[in-house]
Amino acid sequence: MTLPIAIPFRPIDPKKRLATIMSMEEREGFARAMLFDVIETVIDAGCAPVLLTTDEVSEIDVRVRTIVLNMGLNEALDAFRKEQNGAFGIIMADLALCDKKSVIRLMDTPAEFGIVPGTGGGTNAIYIRDGSAFRAQYYGSSFMKHITWAEEQGYSIEIMDSFRLSTDIDEPDDLVEILIHTKRNTAAYLNQLGFVLHTEEGRVGVRRV
Amino acid sequence: MTLPIAIPFRPIDPKKRLATIMSMEEREGFARAMLFDVIETVIDAGCAPVLLTTDEVSEIDVRVRTIVLNMGLNEALDAFRKEQNGAFGIIMADLALCDKKSVIRLMDTPAEFGIVPGTGGGTNAIYIRDGSAFRAQYYGSSFMKHITWAEEQGYSIEIMDSFRLSTDIDEPDDLVEILIHTKRNTAAYLNQLGFVLHTEEGRVGVRRV
Repeated sequence: MTLPIAIPFRPIDPKKRLATIMSMEEREGFARAMLFDVIETVIDAGCAPVLLTTDEVSEIDVRVRTIVLNMGLNEALDAFRKEQNGAFGIIMADLALCDKKSVIRLMDTPAEFGIVPGTGGGTNAIYIRDGSAFRAQYYGSSFMKHITWAEEQGYSIEIMDSFRLSTDIDEPDDLVEILIHTKRNTAAYLNQLGFVLHTEEGRVGVRRV
Repeated sequence: MTLPIAIPFRPIDPKKRLATIMSMEEREGFARAMLFDVIETVIDAGCAPVLLTTDEVSEIDVRVRTIVLNMGLNEALDAFRKEQNGAFGIIMADLALCDKKSVIRLMDTPAEFGIVPGTGGGTNAIYIRDGSAFRAQYYGSSFMKHITWAEEQGYSIEIMDSFRLSTDIDEPDDLVEILIHTKRNTAAYLNQLGFVLHTEEGRVGVRRV
């Protein structure tokens, strides 16, 4: 059976830490562009994306099973896991660097529980073999909370080492990674907004032209 | 033959972006602690560390071949590669998250040129099969420069996907990754200075107590 991968998404007023460089409409378009790339990558990896969104998503030009649940992330994932009777995955909608290889590497783990940390102790992606048993514990130091939980369950655990899946896109400085390492929808959207790479004092950054 | 891995190091007044939270003596101790962990990891991975340092390094309690070259990074690596007649690796001395598995994964690449990007377009680690041909192009967008160079040489290239080797330790916020993901000399040194994890507004950070 094709592995379902839940992709939680919040379409309204997302990525607030980018508000210094993008309008709300631009941030919403940016979040949709990243979501689109994540969905396509999940399909490319041979898995079945399930969009878990707090509100209807407009202008998404890809067919994907969508569940609208206007609730918190942990609550939405709890509702999702209750309808699962096998393994599933979770991938955050803003992992703009994700690629087929890294997604397959995680979802093919021989471990009962696979996890990819985000920067600052978050959780960016998960694989769980016994999906219905999962207890989502996002927010705060979710990486350590998920590991502790999996240890308590007695699961075999793989902490997957991936720059592409660990890289969060939250701050203006993070945009540089998208422009360096990808050439997809999100990079095109950033270019369309006028963001380009520039080197200053020996460091690479982005500026808006 | 054991693969030599050059570890470039600058012991004096390092890690300037941490000056807001550490004295110069503390930064020097911190840089040495990271170097120590990197050297031990390289040995653990079955490779031969070669410390390329701008000045003598005091208080390093590990036996390692040391070359003192008071010059720029590119120049020092150019001097180093001229004495090589086979493959070698390069690993930055501040990759505090590096572990045996990620180092082996890079150095065992079947490609002629392996590279791990740093955040912001830098180059954190390299494997090169024909070592004497290498041209170091650090600073600025060195990742893209190294890729372009390797393409011009006609090399097969692997861009290795590793959070542990891609994570730079430059800013105060980066310390959280060391405290979450490692339990070695560097983490102990940070604890000794009073740095601990703390969660605030749902985000994990470090504070000094």
